[in-house]
Amino acid sequence: MDATVLHAPGDIRLDQVPDPQIVRPTDAVVRVVATCVCGSDLWPYRGISPVKRPRRIGHEHVGVVEEVGSEVRTVRTGDFVIAPFLWSDNTCAHCAAGMQSACAHGGGFGGPDRHGDFVDGCQGEFVRVPLADGTLVATPDQPDEDLLPSLLTLSDVMATGWHAAVSARVREGGTVVVVGDGAVGLCGVLSAAQLGAERVIAMSRHADRQAIATEFGATDIVAERGPEGVARVMELTDGVGADAVLECVGTKEAMDQAFASTRPGGTVGFVGVPHGAEAPVPQMFRRNVGLAGGMAPVRAYLPDLLERVLDGRINPGRVFDQVLPLSEVADGYRAMDERTAIKVMLRP
Amino acid sequence: MDATVLHAPGDIRLDQVPDPQIVRPTDAVVRVVATCVCGSDLWPYRGISPVKRPRRIGHEHVGVVEEVGSEVRTVRTGDFVIAPFLWSDNTCAHCAAGMQSACAHGGGFGGPDRHGDFVDGCQGEFVRVPLADGTLVATPDQPDEDLLPSLLTLSDVMATGWHAAVSARVREGGTVVVVGDGAVGLCGVLSAAQLGAERVIAMSRHADRQAIATEFGATDIVAERGPEGVARVMELTDGVGADAVLECVGTKEAMDQAFASTRPGGTVGFVGVPHGAEAPVPQMFRRNVGLAGGMAPVRAYLPDLLERVLDGRINPGRVFDQVLPLSEVADGYRAMDERTAIKVMLRP
Repeated sequence: MDATVLHAPGDIRLDQVPDPQIVRPTDAVVRVVATCVCGSDLWPYRGISPVKRPRRIGHEHVGVVEEVGSEVRTVRTGDFVIAPFLWSDNTCAHCAAGMQSACAHGGGFGGPDRHGDFVDGCQGEFVRVPLADGTLVATPDQPDEDLLPSLLTLSDVMATGWHAAVSARVREGGTVVVVGDGAVGLCGVLSAAQLGAERVIAMSRHADRQAIATEFGATDIVAERGPEGVARVMELTDGVGADAVLECVGTKEAMDQAFASTRPGGTVGFVGVPHGAEAPVPQMFRRNVGLAGGMAPVRAYLPDLLERVLDGRINPGRVFDQVLPLSEVADGYRAMDERTAIKVMLRP
Repeated sequence: MDATVLHAPGDIRLDQVPDPQIVRPTDAVVRVVATCVCGSDLWPYRGISPVKRPRRIGHEHVGVVEEVGSEVRTVRTGDFVIAPFLWSDNTCAHCAAGMQSACAHGGGFGGPDRHGDFVDGCQGEFVRVPLADGTLVATPDQPDEDLLPSLLTLSDVMATGWHAAVSARVREGGTVVVVGDGAVGLCGVLSAAQLGAERVIAMSRHADRQAIATEFGATDIVAERGPEGVARVMELTDGVGADAVLECVGTKEAMDQAFASTRPGGTVGFVGVPHGAEAPVPQMFRRNVGLAGGMAPVRAYLPDLLERVLDGRINPGRVFDQVLPLSEVADGYRAMDERTAIKVMLRP
């Protein structure tokens, strides 16, 4: 089959690789219907995370179950499924507590599983999904083509934006700031609005992203950054700061901006993979600003978010502004890297 | 009047200083009935926080109102009052949100207020308390002598332990670890038990402190520290970790231990004044462990905690294992510094 391989920073190719097979009785093999490029894929693509050898890549996909192992009970061949970006047993103590991203027996895509068997990256034609029962969620029916983008966001960005909002303790009637206008940040805006925030301040300098933020429920847009951005937030909140701030980038600058925008007693919900991000402990102590978040337990949020997509309450698929055939994956990475696209969907 | 002055690290004396006066119409002058030495007083005493010039010290007191300014409405001369370790207006946006330790017009004891007028430290005979209405809480009657220790803890350590538990999101039925067996840590144990934790693991190597922890509701004692302590916590929690961990020290070692003892999705509640404490952001991200806390909004918790003391549900005064006349304040500091006392009460 064809699958995406990152050979070196900037060198992304579609290669011929072996077709995945059922290895263990709890596996499923999924034919990928849609996959996409994530902001976090850019860290190794840009060489900021090291690339020691060619590696398969991609951790988001939706598709149709092609084959299941003998112990799989909750999905069957032909089901349309959404796969969280991490697989999990959904039964261990961490999963039972709703923290499937810390599953005692789980893992990620594009590397070996705990038995040493390879798990495909998701930017390819097929993916072996371990622990299929604990990982995959099937839609009630085969979804219409126009629902695909929104369903695909449930694999990562929508669930991650949701996790930022939940971690930041967004409350009914509260004031929220979202730092980061990538797909996750925009989904954070949508999540904050869904969770009942009265005021959602989106920080963005790009007209196209501002437009989606507004459509998703942002009540205010702040184009300034750094200290100017913080000053503007303070102006908008009568000098108090926001109850909840969603940090959806991962850099030191974004984290600093998030902390400075949060009111005493408020919380920064962070979901950007940390690259130099630091927590200013003395400032947190002095101002009682909390920090929570991390890798989203997508599987925990999936049933609820799927319902919201299917009944039309949310349309997070709006973050996809480019669709390419998988064969043009290199163009997709380039568009994401140069920020000419917010998020690129790939169709095998 | 007599008041405690820290002249240099290790050099603490009772000096003659001017009697405080009502300076502004919102002030009260309180005659100190009991005060005490705080773990955080030891930072400058030990020279870890710099002491540039002689300074008045102490931030915990209970006493009797001696005089009030013309605008004070909620307390009157003769009232027995508890003073939080920070004064606040209790009306600004931060106070209204229950975060009085970030009051827009508040401040601390032992330094100038926002108008440049001196506010006494609390280890003395009298204290000028600014913003008396927003700060002081009067007891319904003159309390019995045997209630004094518990009432005095409401000025700081009990409210701070409570804040650690609230910040760590201690829940009914949960598992809690408390790092630190000083007065705050012990009050954290008591708070966790009051908030319904099913299991409270106190980390302590001192028999006298272990005994109070057990009396306060600890179900398990862990005497090991560092990695051995974490291993023991993991053993006690079936490898899962605690839902909530209270960090009541402020050092890097204590913070590391706290994070390593917390389960994915759990929260470290921190109240130890940070001295080198760091937040391990990548680990927090990977494991979804949050950090919250800081300077306790004592005023927010005071009415509830006062009720618990008065109706006998809690007896946090047990943390005082030494009572000295104010004239022996230097001995009190020595006992705290050498850890021969858990907490020293001083009687002017």
